Amino acid sequence: MKPGNATDLFKAAAEGNRIALARAISAIERGDKVGEEVSRLAFPKSEIGVSIGITGSPGAGKSTLTSAIIDVIRAKDEEIAVVAIDPSSPFTGGAILGDRIRMQDHALDNGVYIRSMATRGHLGGLTVAVPEAVRLLSAVGFATTIVETVGVGQIEIDIVNEADTTVVVVNPGWGDSIQANKAGLMEIADVFIINKADRVGTRETRRDLESMLDLSAAKEFRPPIIETVASEGKGVAEAYDAILSHRSWADASGLTAERRRRRRRNEVERIIRATIEAKVAKLIRDGESDGSFRKLDDLSLDPHSLASSMLEGSQ
Amino acid sequence: MKPGNATDLFKAAAEGNRIALARAISAIERGDKVGEEVSRLAFPKSEIGVSIGITGSPGAGKSTLTSAIIDVIRAKDEEIAVVAIDPSSPFTGGAILGDRIRMQDHALDNGVYIRSMATRGHLGGLTVAVPEAVRLLSAVGFATTIVETVGVGQIEIDIVNEADTTVVVVNPGWGDSIQANKAGLMEIADVFIINKADRVGTRETRRDLESMLDLSAAKEFRPPIIETVASEGKGVAEAYDAILSHRSWADASGLTAERRRRRRRNEVERIIRATIEAKVAKLIRDGESDGSFRKLDDLSLDPHSLASSMLEGSQ
Repeated sequence: MKPGNATDLFKAAAEGNRIALARAISAIERGDKVGEEVSRLAFPKSEIGVSIGITGSPGAGKSTLTSAIIDVIRAKDEEIAVVAIDPSSPFTGGAILGDRIRMQDHALDNGVYIRSMATRGHLGGLTVAVPEAVRLLSAVGFATTIVETVGVGQIEIDIVNEADTTVVVVNPGWGDSIQANKAGLMEIADVFIINKADRVGTRETRRDLESMLDLSAAKEFRPPIIETVASEGKGVAEAYDAILSHRSWADASGLTAERRRRRRRNEVERIIRATIEAKVAKLIRDGESDGSFRKLDDLSLDPHSLASSMLEGSQ
Repeated sequence: MKPGNATDLFKAAAEGNRIALARAISAIERGDKVGEEVSRLAFPKSEIGVSIGITGSPGAGKSTLTSAIIDVIRAKDEEIAVVAIDPSSPFTGGAILGDRIRMQDHALDNGVYIRSMATRGHLGGLTVAVPEAVRLLSAVGFATTIVETVGVGQIEIDIVNEADTTVVVVNPGWGDSIQANKAGLMEIADVFIINKADRVGTRETRRDLESMLDLSAAKEFRPPIIETVASEGKGVAEAYDAILSHRSWADASGLTAERRRRRRRNEVERIIRATIEAKVAKLIRDGESDGSFRKLDDLSLDPHSLASSMLEGSQ
């Protein structure tokens, strides 16, 4: 395996070489030529695995729940990958996974691959890199990939919303903590999980969710509400069953195909946009350095004419 | 004056023809070729007039205050233009100005020109159109143009922030109503006006503003806080004096020149971005109609390759 050769990296990753896999995802994360080539190689096999998005407020217990779901999946002897995303962090690896104590239970299990992704070298960021990483994980043989967010910002919501099944994790009394994103979370949820359901307020939270589901535009599939105490493994098998039920319905109804269709289009649009954004940034930098902007300042060239000539010069 | 001829429209507008002026601004609003050409003609004369941005929550009394400031300016026999912006409204004219009863006091005064601007035909929207309209108003002879917003969204804040002097209008007890935008408003204010200052809570609001100013990064010019009861004309002369004082300082310190320099650069960037956005939208539409996207669905072409070929094909 030559480092930096996409074909070799992809081949080795597909044969189970975890170091090659990690390098391939890092290339995707950087958005460089090797990353693009890895994504190209993975694309024809990208429909094999399924993805589960897990989101919710920080502290809701998403990592503990993910870890417990890993236990359920591993008990069936299936392999599983986890991509943990944090757009707000400039670091990958340690920063996110540091406090994921329970996930470390799986650190020595070769059937579990855990990877965190944060920022990315070029524009387009995680909204381009995460779907590519998920595709690669599917292409190298992971039947299931969980995409877990740290926070509930718009970027995270956009990303998990493109999973085959999206899980929103709340806690008793959740309403106060994520008021701002409530509507967005209601909209994307395929399955609700009330975690820490041994605490007071569980019944009220369920009632709250049910009435919001009653009020929202009727979906063909009404998201079930599952109660878990993930730290004790309680309710986790039921939660995973609910995820599988949604997927069966989504496969049969055509939703899975439709979501993937939409995801591919979004990817093309994001790549085009990112490429063009990079071009704009370069035009602006060039305009400062080659003195074009000075013509604006002595009023000898107007913004429209300057913009036109910069755009023409760039092609 | 041939309708639709930019040179004729601009010439007539500069000679005081208000119908020509209105048509020229409509062309700018639509963002069509005539609008671009009008903007080009106006550009060399764009440094003559000054602009005052007025923003604040809906109901704070911005229109009443603007109307009262018009009275002060007209008493000096100077001409004044007002651009009222509402990015959330798909309509221009009536929707915004309908409830601006007090402004109608000036409807028959030919020394006052009032114009509302809402959406715009092509992408880039008000952030491109409003600066162009302000420039045109300056070029045709208005010594002062007030840019007034209906709401306090990010687009409005971006636009008024580019005025030579930015006025933020608050009311007693303002803190509760615009919590979300407080930081943004604190940052852009050159002058604070506590309108409806005959109500309870004025002293607390002033103390609140003073302590936020103490806490925020020291500006070279500390924004004064003026109390008005605009509906009775109280404090309005003082408010206008505070605006003039800021402008004198800004002119002398170089801030005015720096803001205008930044404004011109932002305009070029926005025009480039809008042009490119339109291109992306067209690429996506074409991809749907010419069947390019189908190759994604049968997995015969990956997103990177498709994006590349779409971008190449567009040049």
